[in-house]
Amino acid sequence: MIKSQNITWQPTKVTKAARQNLLGHKPAVLWFTGLSGSGKSTIAMAVEKRLFERGLNSYVLDGDNIRFGLNQNLGFTATDRQENIRRIGEVAKLFVDAGTITLTAFISPYRADRDQVRALLAADEFIEVFVDTPLAVCEQRDVKQLYAKARRGEIKGFTGVDAPYEAPLKPELTIDTSQQSLAQSVDQIIDYLQAKQYITAANAESQL
Amino acid sequence: MIKSQNITWQPTKVTKAARQNLLGHKPAVLWFTGLSGSGKSTIAMAVEKRLFERGLNSYVLDGDNIRFGLNQNLGFTATDRQENIRRIGEVAKLFVDAGTITLTAFISPYRADRDQVRALLAADEFIEVFVDTPLAVCEQRDVKQLYAKARRGEIKGFTGVDAPYEAPLKPELTIDTSQQSLAQSVDQIIDYLQAKQYITAANAESQL
Repeated sequence: MIKSQNITWQPTKVTKAARQNLLGHKPAVLWFTGLSGSGKSTIAMAVEKRLFERGLNSYVLDGDNIRFGLNQNLGFTATDRQENIRRIGEVAKLFVDAGTITLTAFISPYRADRDQVRALLAADEFIEVFVDTPLAVCEQRDVKQLYAKARRGEIKGFTGVDAPYEAPLKPELTIDTSQQSLAQSVDQIIDYLQAKQYITAANAESQL
Repeated sequence: MIKSQNITWQPTKVTKAARQNLLGHKPAVLWFTGLSGSGKSTIAMAVEKRLFERGLNSYVLDGDNIRFGLNQNLGFTATDRQENIRRIGEVAKLFVDAGTITLTAFISPYRADRDQVRALLAADEFIEVFVDTPLAVCEQRDVKQLYAKARRGEIKGFTGVDAPYEAPLKPELTIDTSQQSLAQSVDQIIDYLQAKQYITAANAESQL
């Protein structure tokens, strides 16, 4: 038990650099963007798991934990979609401030919204991952039968069907899941994080 | 470099239990509530620092990183105050899900709002810390000159002056900063976390 009743000190925030030293990695947001069914969440969760196996803590923000919680009071109007991405960006910024490698998996179809999030963070803290799986492939998968409903007009404003998807102009990473396996997609991201020194080779060797 | 191109696996979320094992502590929200000037942020930051010195990562959500970011589009109407606390509660829940000991430092004057956050979390994940510094002491400190302005009528709806503060009925911890030092307040919280096994004595011994 610590007892230091006679010590007083000026409380200060724990710095980002100190956290980085403790956690063994440099924090950033991996912002996955792409069509419904492109593989964003699947890849994000697989990367999270791979990082975990290296002894690194990361966290995925996705529809499951955002739409039914923080953003439960938002719908799908243009204004609400923009506010949806804004809030996710702000939460991602908090996680990065806390030192976490943060992965977000949202269609985020508008370039301006994504660029607004990029602007919230330092230049090397925002990594845009364009999951560039062709529409035809996404539509063929149609795991949640959403494309079918959109084609029948039962869902309005569905990205790729009757709402635009604005592809990133200069994403840090581009992944096409119709051309490579999930493991290869994860490798691509892990290799990038290592090459850019967000994580180190030591992380891999010490844990695997 | 990891290359496991021929391995496929079913991606799953990293479980809370696995995170707890990796991080060496059990996550929870320390929800500080009390009047302006009661010492919430100061204590929260000092606890964060103390945990950091034990090799444990924690994070403070407070006015500095919330009001100018996530909640910049909220004012001080009754509805906005409620939405303010709701969003903070949801973000705290995400941090706990990510495995973080999360400290929040907001006046959060309404019992119903705090109880709503408590209900979001598991029973042992919400630790209400009532910073019960007497109004007279808070007003005497008046670091930001807010009480003076409220007394002159320049700020309307100021908690403790012309807006109510609903004290917690069964807080997990009560701290009166007029009766003990900052270090003692921090000790009180750390002792609680240790007694309830959120953190272990081993954390202390291995790092100090």
